[in-house]
Amino acid sequence: MNLTRREFGRLSALGIAAQFAPALNAQSGAKKIGYAVIGLGRIADHFMRGALLTSNSAITGLVSGHRDKADRIAEQYHVQQNSIYSYKNFDEIAKNPAIDAVYVALPNSMHAEYTIRAAKAGKHVLCEKPMAVSVKECEAMIAACKAANVKLMIAYRCHYEPVHLKAIELIRSGKLGKVQSIQSAFGFSEDMGEWRLDKKMAGGGPLYDVGIYCLNACRYLTGEEPAEISGYASTIDHDGRFTSVEENVAWSMKFPSGTLASCMTSYGAPMDGFFRVYGSKGFLDCDPAFNYDHLRLRGWCSGERIDISETTPDPYQFQAEADHFSNCILTNQQPQSPGEEGLRDLTYITKIYASAGIKA
Amino acid sequence: MNLTRREFGRLSALGIAAQFAPALNAQSGAKKIGYAVIGLGRIADHFMRGALLTSNSAITGLVSGHRDKADRIAEQYHVQQNSIYSYKNFDEIAKNPAIDAVYVALPNSMHAEYTIRAAKAGKHVLCEKPMAVSVKECEAMIAACKAANVKLMIAYRCHYEPVHLKAIELIRSGKLGKVQSIQSAFGFSEDMGEWRLDKKMAGGGPLYDVGIYCLNACRYLTGEEPAEISGYASTIDHDGRFTSVEENVAWSMKFPSGTLASCMTSYGAPMDGFFRVYGSKGFLDCDPAFNYDHLRLRGWCSGERIDISETTPDPYQFQAEADHFSNCILTNQQPQSPGEEGLRDLTYITKIYASAGIKA
Repeated sequence: MNLTRREFGRLSALGIAAQFAPALNAQSGAKKIGYAVIGLGRIADHFMRGALLTSNSAITGLVSGHRDKADRIAEQYHVQQNSIYSYKNFDEIAKNPAIDAVYVALPNSMHAEYTIRAAKAGKHVLCEKPMAVSVKECEAMIAACKAANVKLMIAYRCHYEPVHLKAIELIRSGKLGKVQSIQSAFGFSEDMGEWRLDKKMAGGGPLYDVGIYCLNACRYLTGEEPAEISGYASTIDHDGRFTSVEENVAWSMKFPSGTLASCMTSYGAPMDGFFRVYGSKGFLDCDPAFNYDHLRLRGWCSGERIDISETTPDPYQFQAEADHFSNCILTNQQPQSPGEEGLRDLTYITKIYASAGIKA
Repeated sequence: MNLTRREFGRLSALGIAAQFAPALNAQSGAKKIGYAVIGLGRIADHFMRGALLTSNSAITGLVSGHRDKADRIAEQYHVQQNSIYSYKNFDEIAKNPAIDAVYVALPNSMHAEYTIRAAKAGKHVLCEKPMAVSVKECEAMIAACKAANVKLMIAYRCHYEPVHLKAIELIRSGKLGKVQSIQSAFGFSEDMGEWRLDKKMAGGGPLYDVGIYCLNACRYLTGEEPAEISGYASTIDHDGRFTSVEENVAWSMKFPSGTLASCMTSYGAPMDGFFRVYGSKGFLDCDPAFNYDHLRLRGWCSGERIDISETTPDPYQFQAEADHFSNCILTNQQPQSPGEEGLRDLTYITKIYASAGIKA
């Protein structure tokens, strides 16, 4: 499939560009974007495997506090020994021409520091969600990337996921009629001792980690920004896990069109991610919606039955995400989920917290 | 199954008495409670068919503004010609010994008047939900029934429905762990010209008619009263339907235990009723939850898979409801869903409206 930049731009506006990105990329030549992965936890593994599946991305650097682990992974991904960095000598990536960009997969509280240091080193930044722990940090990250003239993308994998893109397309096409409301939830039972339960490292509770998927989905599904937003928070299990962050958050939003949304997140219960969109001409039920694979979209739109299952296994979402960002760098385009997108979610999270009586 | 009153009382406290009511009733003799049905619309038909299936209830009177229709239905249900009333001569039911109770199936704005007139006629009252259009009316209805020493029950059919009772039982047993949160929705696309779209007759929009199922379910599932409650309302379709009531309402609640709930209702979209309960040891998904039959409850509780389908066809819910109220009258017990239950929901509806900026 051949796409001109102009056609790609139109698809971008519809939010369905990502699925065509490989086609455009194939046209743009053989250069691959080399990524240094910062933080070698579980999600970094998904990303590295995903990047390997693209034709425009490569893993060319590793940043870790554990050299043994880094050495092991370097061998697996054919990363040069001189492209392995610690958090101390990280800034030396500036001198490494094999590294074009970084993928920040650290605990939330470290996103801002490493994004800014990477930008200062002249590297593009793909940063995991939540973008940072505060609005102020997000603003500093955007400013640093702008000053360094590097691109900044927040790793909202669902922006590049075919089932989510199909839901957006169905809504934009008008087949669902006017969107009256959306419900969404995502949560899980978090284990004692995880860094996510430490407010200093995580910024907050489940809203920062998983609730953000629901928040972000309501925004891209409607294509609107919430005009009103408020919520409640609670801690029910007094078993030592929730001394620092809250266990549950429920929040509601009203969008300018009148679309209402209500969402739920928890660290105290298994809560498979889903969203339901209710339109005047039908409904869409995405369940599971936020897993790494096997997403399913069912519903009825203008009398037509919808039942779409994504059968490509993990890490296809990370592949699409890496492919998109690399393509943006190669073709000098703005990512579909730039720093401003992450900043907006942090702004709303801050509002939900304020209304729920939680100090940010 | 033989139950003493004491055992029945214990089951009542668990909210699972209704399913055993026929057993108790069988013990109490052959007397049947005779109902006069006020308002002969669709729901009255469900109730009359349901009452016929019980061993303790009979249809012995009809109240309608359309004598032709009443005559036709009287023949069908073997109601005596001298037990057919108009709204004008309704108060004469006082002199009819075949009528023990009334079933109020009128538009919401008429519930208070006919409940109070029936009480003054010395008849017990089973009144459809919502109990009335205002808190004040609910209070007057309770007072009138108390003064006349007649029983008042609000026809919350789900209180007597086995799948709902099973969900309550699983939650109370602790098998679901601590209930962290609940999500629920119920709505439909209402047609132009229906009395439900007229605030004077309906009291308000979808929250009064169908959202009340979600509100009520969150209360009986938790067994708690919301400590905090707030919501948003909107009208999106400006096609003439929503000049009097709003189209959508979303609201959230926080219960004293910390359980959070978020619910959604609409007159502008097909929105099959469901509820999901998220506990620390599993989840319950009831979908469909508020239909007249074929309810289904699925989930996991403490490692045990739950999949319960109700296969009894409509009008089994109305049968259970009639059976319960008749039994309460025969055995002089308080109904599981008395007037106070309807009053509480009206109180919360009023709070949601106030927070959403809608004049009650």
